[in-house]
Amino acid sequence: MRQFVVVSHDAPLDGNFSLSDLPGAGRVDLLCRCLNAAFLTSHGIREAVHTYLVVRDEATIRLSGSTLRNLHPDERSTAALLRGALQAREQAVGHREVEPSPGVFVSKRGLAEVLEAIDSDGPVVQLHEAGNPIVDLAAPAAPTFVLSDHRNFTDGEKGLLAEHVDDRVSLGPERVHADHAITVAHNYLDTDGYAHY
Amino acid sequence: MRQFVVVSHDAPLDGNFSLSDLPGAGRVDLLCRCLNAAFLTSHGIREAVHTYLVVRDEATIRLSGSTLRNLHPDERSTAALLRGALQAREQAVGHREVEPSPGVFVSKRGLAEVLEAIDSDGPVVQLHEAGNPIVDLAAPAAPTFVLSDHRNFTDGEKGLLAEHVDDRVSLGPERVHADHAITVAHNYLDTDGYAHY
Repeated sequence: MRQFVVVSHDAPLDGNFSLSDLPGAGRVDLLCRCLNAAFLTSHGIREAVHTYLVVRDEATIRLSGSTLRNLHPDERSTAALLRGALQAREQAVGHREVEPSPGVFVSKRGLAEVLEAIDSDGPVVQLHEAGNPIVDLAAPAAPTFVLSDHRNFTDGEKGLLAEHVDDRVSLGPERVHADHAITVAHNYLDTDGYAHY
Repeated sequence: MRQFVVVSHDAPLDGNFSLSDLPGAGRVDLLCRCLNAAFLTSHGIREAVHTYLVVRDEATIRLSGSTLRNLHPDERSTAALLRGALQAREQAVGHREVEPSPGVFVSKRGLAEVLEAIDSDGPVVQLHEAGNPIVDLAAPAAPTFVLSDHRNFTDGEKGLLAEHVDDRVSLGPERVHADHAITVAHNYLDTDGYAHY
């Protein structure tokens, strides 16, 4: 199992946005590319992946690769999936999830609740330019990578991360977008730490 | 300098497509993500990159990082840039390029002409599942990576590649989309072969 937590600071909580302006919708385009990177290979879907999108600390959309349907590579169709999930948020009571589409779950959890939920699943890894090179990290069987959208983590988020993160890891000297980071992390794990091709 | 050649088999040559259905436009969405991966980092643009999109062997859109403007991360705005380039194709005479937008050039070249043009720039690398692990390749200073879209290379394209390709390289055991492959290739080169972080 591999898990990704992506923190979205600006996506519209009520799912009220136009599919024709995803950058203007709090950078939903970036979230869509993160899901593409997290789940899609050339010929299928990565079943052993969970991805959590934490939106404004008031909604969490969880996608589970083993049952996920209707995820296509393009941003627009993925944005429609996310819009449906956010629109279903009001049906979710507290931390309980509803499943508006197969493999897509939404709840009113924030980052604190998500980090608590995943803390025992395996090492929690924060991607950070000052972290240790990922090649120094033994490729763990069940890591959770925590990433931010186009904004930096807030001080409050950093505080939560400090409680849960086991490793801070650098992917290279270039600072890259979250979706590219997910692709590099997958490649590192796919190759067992650049050992098996 | 790093170069990418992406072969598109189905994008509409005349640029006549809807920005609201990029998958239906011969998978223009994939080309857009390839450009995002080729050029964009978290805080800017990779200036020392050229990318060639060869469309149906009858148009080549060349983008040059050093002068490129108006490339944003989302697919829709990038698709508008490509649409404009394809619509300007008729103004291009033979192999001569026109520049409909800063850093975006279009000509009527096909794959053979592009491969001839780049052959002396540095090693030509084909990404291939049966290739040598990329970690066995000395990180070359000026490689050109050649990739296909959602389709396999045709027999004719394979024949051309056989004449020009210096290395066939595997990025890992999972077969990944072209844009993800570009991200992994950049990371390999950024880190000087996973040595510098």
